[in-house]
Amino acid sequence: MTIASLSAKLVRKARPAASRATASGKPLSGRAVLKGQQTKQAIVDVALGLATQIGLEGLSIGALAEATQMSKSGVFAHFGSREELQISVVLEYHERFEQEVFFPAIGEAKGLPRLRALFANWMRRTSTEIDSGCLYIGGAVEFDDRTGPVRDALVSSVQIWLSAMHRAIVQSKACGHLRDDTDEEQMAFEIHGLILALHYEARFLKKPGSLDRANLGFENIVARYGAPTSS
Amino acid sequence: MTIASLSAKLVRKARPAASRATASGKPLSGRAVLKGQQTKQAIVDVALGLATQIGLEGLSIGALAEATQMSKSGVFAHFGSREELQISVVLEYHERFEQEVFFPAIGEAKGLPRLRALFANWMRRTSTEIDSGCLYIGGAVEFDDRTGPVRDALVSSVQIWLSAMHRAIVQSKACGHLRDDTDEEQMAFEIHGLILALHYEARFLKKPGSLDRANLGFENIVARYGAPTSS
Repeated sequence: MTIASLSAKLVRKARPAASRATASGKPLSGRAVLKGQQTKQAIVDVALGLATQIGLEGLSIGALAEATQMSKSGVFAHFGSREELQISVVLEYHERFEQEVFFPAIGEAKGLPRLRALFANWMRRTSTEIDSGCLYIGGAVEFDDRTGPVRDALVSSVQIWLSAMHRAIVQSKACGHLRDDTDEEQMAFEIHGLILALHYEARFLKKPGSLDRANLGFENIVARYGAPTSS
Repeated sequence: MTIASLSAKLVRKARPAASRATASGKPLSGRAVLKGQQTKQAIVDVALGLATQIGLEGLSIGALAEATQMSKSGVFAHFGSREELQISVVLEYHERFEQEVFFPAIGEAKGLPRLRALFANWMRRTSTEIDSGCLYIGGAVEFDDRTGPVRDALVSSVQIWLSAMHRAIVQSKACGHLRDDTDEEQMAFEIHGLILALHYEARFLKKPGSLDRANLGFENIVARYGAPTSS
């Protein structure tokens, strides 16, 4: 399954018919739909900014109304529930993550060049998030002991991304860039750890040099699993 | 500086005179002090259980009063403020972490045996926290963009532990168990990443095999940095 089809599945699951009509069920004119979509997008943008600072659980229709200077009923008309608002934020984050991390890397040649690009883009995004917070890391702590559709959307989104990394490792092995005995799950786990350590040590502990350590950690992993003829 | 002296410093900084007298300033009899300490400890135990589930920021004097079936003023008499309550929880977590992770390892021979024991104990504790949550990981997300004494206590506590790991790596190198060119900070960063990935993948993603991957990741790191004659 490609990342595009997985993403489409996630969007279909999480964005039911509610977003295509008003709460009253009446069909809308083309212009009204466009205007509604623009307003909804503007609210989601503000909500995402808030969520990376205060967490998904900090979001509420009331807080969003205040931040966007709209009425509560105005915000409610676009989302219907706090849960739908939270899921929309997860989807928005997912789309931006794809745009910044995944899509620029698939232009690279299959195998190690693409894997390197994915990691470099992931690191770059994590570095910018040292100031703003990461929804995948913060959300994991918020939702690790809960159930429900917001957690499901977050888990699906993270898994889509980790599957893309895993697939790049599988392809690197198939291309002969990694040793034949490489355990792809193990390599993906170790790479994930570097990103989590970068986020923790740079954002929480404010420790200088974390970015260089994550970079060197990746080179160490590639040296371990790389085929003797590859670098 | 040893972990014991660092811990004493942290406790002195965070536990001022407030815990040695009543809010009214009157000295207490020996028996009353003991009874007061027992009650305070009982409240901290409940608070720690709550904090690992709902976060340090979820704690309040009111929530604790409800959970312990005490009056709000009864809880307040022991802590004085929500902040003091949160700091007491961080100190309690710190002490338990030391008891479970640090102290059982210092009986091992200096160098790689002690480093292995520290990692094994850390992993064991992280595994039990897959059900209950980790204050060092959850707290980092809650307090990464805040300032104040609760964040300071949490950062100090984490740094004491990471310093102990770092010192074990320095000792392993001095003992000739690691290569002369080992970058101790780099090795500590990579090990920290394994623990964070274990917590994330096992607790949030419920992915089987995460514990084995963290273990194998550690062996890979030791193989990279280990002196040729050591294993």
